[in-house]
Amino acid sequence: MKNKDLNLEHYTIFIDPSLQRLDDLITKKKYTSIFVLVDENTKKHCLPKLPVKAFQLIEISSGESFKNLQTCGEIWDFLLKNGADRKSLFINLGGGVIGDMGGFAASCFKRGMDFINIPTTLLSQVDASIGGKLAIDFKFAKNLIGLFKDPTAVFISTGFFDTLPANQFKNGWAEIFKHALIYNPNLWEEIKSLENLKIDDIERIVIRNLEIKKAVVEIDPFEKNLRKILNFGHTIGHAIESLSVENDKEPLLHGEAIIIGMICESFLSSKLLNMPQSELLDICTTLKKHFTEYDLSKISLDEVWDIMMYDKKNEDGKILCVLLEKIGKPIWDIPLQKADVESAFKYYIDLYEK
Amino acid sequence: MKNKDLNLEHYTIFIDPSLQRLDDLITKKKYTSIFVLVDENTKKHCLPKLPVKAFQLIEISSGESFKNLQTCGEIWDFLLKNGADRKSLFINLGGGVIGDMGGFAASCFKRGMDFINIPTTLLSQVDASIGGKLAIDFKFAKNLIGLFKDPTAVFISTGFFDTLPANQFKNGWAEIFKHALIYNPNLWEEIKSLENLKIDDIERIVIRNLEIKKAVVEIDPFEKNLRKILNFGHTIGHAIESLSVENDKEPLLHGEAIIIGMICESFLSSKLLNMPQSELLDICTTLKKHFTEYDLSKISLDEVWDIMMYDKKNEDGKILCVLLEKIGKPIWDIPLQKADVESAFKYYIDLYEK
Repeated sequence: MKNKDLNLEHYTIFIDPSLQRLDDLITKKKYTSIFVLVDENTKKHCLPKLPVKAFQLIEISSGESFKNLQTCGEIWDFLLKNGADRKSLFINLGGGVIGDMGGFAASCFKRGMDFINIPTTLLSQVDASIGGKLAIDFKFAKNLIGLFKDPTAVFISTGFFDTLPANQFKNGWAEIFKHALIYNPNLWEEIKSLENLKIDDIERIVIRNLEIKKAVVEIDPFEKNLRKILNFGHTIGHAIESLSVENDKEPLLHGEAIIIGMICESFLSSKLLNMPQSELLDICTTLKKHFTEYDLSKISLDEVWDIMMYDKKNEDGKILCVLLEKIGKPIWDIPLQKADVESAFKYYIDLYEK
Repeated sequence: MKNKDLNLEHYTIFIDPSLQRLDDLITKKKYTSIFVLVDENTKKHCLPKLPVKAFQLIEISSGESFKNLQTCGEIWDFLLKNGADRKSLFINLGGGVIGDMGGFAASCFKRGMDFINIPTTLLSQVDASIGGKLAIDFKFAKNLIGLFKDPTAVFISTGFFDTLPANQFKNGWAEIFKHALIYNPNLWEEIKSLENLKIDDIERIVIRNLEIKKAVVEIDPFEKNLRKILNFGHTIGHAIESLSVENDKEPLLHGEAIIIGMICESFLSSKLLNMPQSELLDICTTLKKHFTEYDLSKISLDEVWDIMMYDKKNEDGKILCVLLEKIGKPIWDIPLQKADVESAFKYYIDLYEK
């Protein structure tokens, strides 16, 4: 069987449905102890699939609202009390929250222990698991506190998707659409015509997306320039996500918020960068087909704008955004005005009324 | 005038009594905004000497007991609310607590902004200001949470010593004695005969110490091996310091605790590594001459041992220590037993009773 692993500069992404090579790696590295971070969902559905023998389990509550300094403190407390040292291993078994926060916690504990990412959701497999961006939220600001640090390895197994809820699976498609739009018009053509988002060869799609992300982060690991394109849909999407996490009983998932962000920012691409109307229609019809409407009318423009003011991409008080000149050609550092966001919201609401 | 600056791989230590080159550097880098971290002491005595025009001031309370996650959260809150972005600059104006915590806060804010260290104490000039070790304390564990990250620059000015209290000045000598003992017998010979620790050419001594630390951290930046020698006196010293911070009305300063640690670990060097008795006597007589007794009899061996169990240098549950085979020849990763610490405490107490 052909080896499909991806080799990055400092680590390997193992495409390993059975996770059988994880144990080999752990044995080779001679760790003094192993800690596995899970939430109640991955404890139930994913932990039984983990072929690791002796470890200590750290369980946190699932969801973005727990990705904060307090939970991080609980993880550090557990590590401190249970004898973790610099030669211990930390395994993140879960989605983006587990990976972002677990990686951050591990990287700061005693100034850094090894961590391995085992992303269990489609979203985290195509996105957060690679690239070394680690973070927790702080107050209303998403991912405000964090750092860049590569994992020791990443293990990709589509075997976890059997038990992944449908909305979580669809959630992952948001970043797949994004990768296609910013980087690969051919991929866009292929996936836009899918009737539903369930496909047999999901591993192939995951690998193509990992290749795109790898290409981008290897050129610009610290997001000085090119890597900013990965934030398409995120300037507006993150702000909506933050408000939803704060206010909604059933908050938007990250991918759902990014879909809204991509529709808004595609509209702004046509408005500010003259992206062809045909492409705008193409993008928005496709995204609308798969994702139901979110009631944007209940969101205050002032509040969204206030949160956008705290976006990490901003410089010198200007809100900077990634827009598309056309599909596959993103431009970064485009300044936005409040009126732009207002018009984009109107476009989104009208789109779903049609 | 000969330029005395030290160039490290990623940054320069400017030997710059007037700090006049700081403004040049800031202008060249085109920062969007500048934040200066001080405590009540450096605000009063050092801030007036800072030749920076426009900045926002962050003031925290002085002392090791504030070097924690809560203060860090207050710093992040200030940065968030006052528009700091990735192209802002963070200046640490103070001693080791300011440098360790400010560097950590800056390095994690939006995944990292530039920071410049302006160490204002003798201790932080010869020690914490270089080497990229950043950290805060967590519960009873010193420097448990942190990371390795180099500053953008370090500025050394002995002009701050005019207003440095005598005990703080003496405190810095602990690390100077340590550098001499682990690395430079000639420096040891020179400084051991000093009658008091006030000397005219303190800048020369600071630079020699920076050269020693530079040599060590450049070979082993992440403390995998050689850099461990800088922990001489710290295995026992840190534990005593933690207990003192927790229990004493006027806690030991870091250097004062390290002096106790060096006396204890020098005794253990003679016991476990056969360091010559003449050298043990030489070291202990010298240190005793400059530092008054601390009442070790009130410290519980069990408590010290418990804290030592959480030392970052430990591996696999073993307490690992740096000892001297002779002056200038340190050996790291020497395992300690509880009885060793007990005998070292007895030696310390007897030493001062003589």
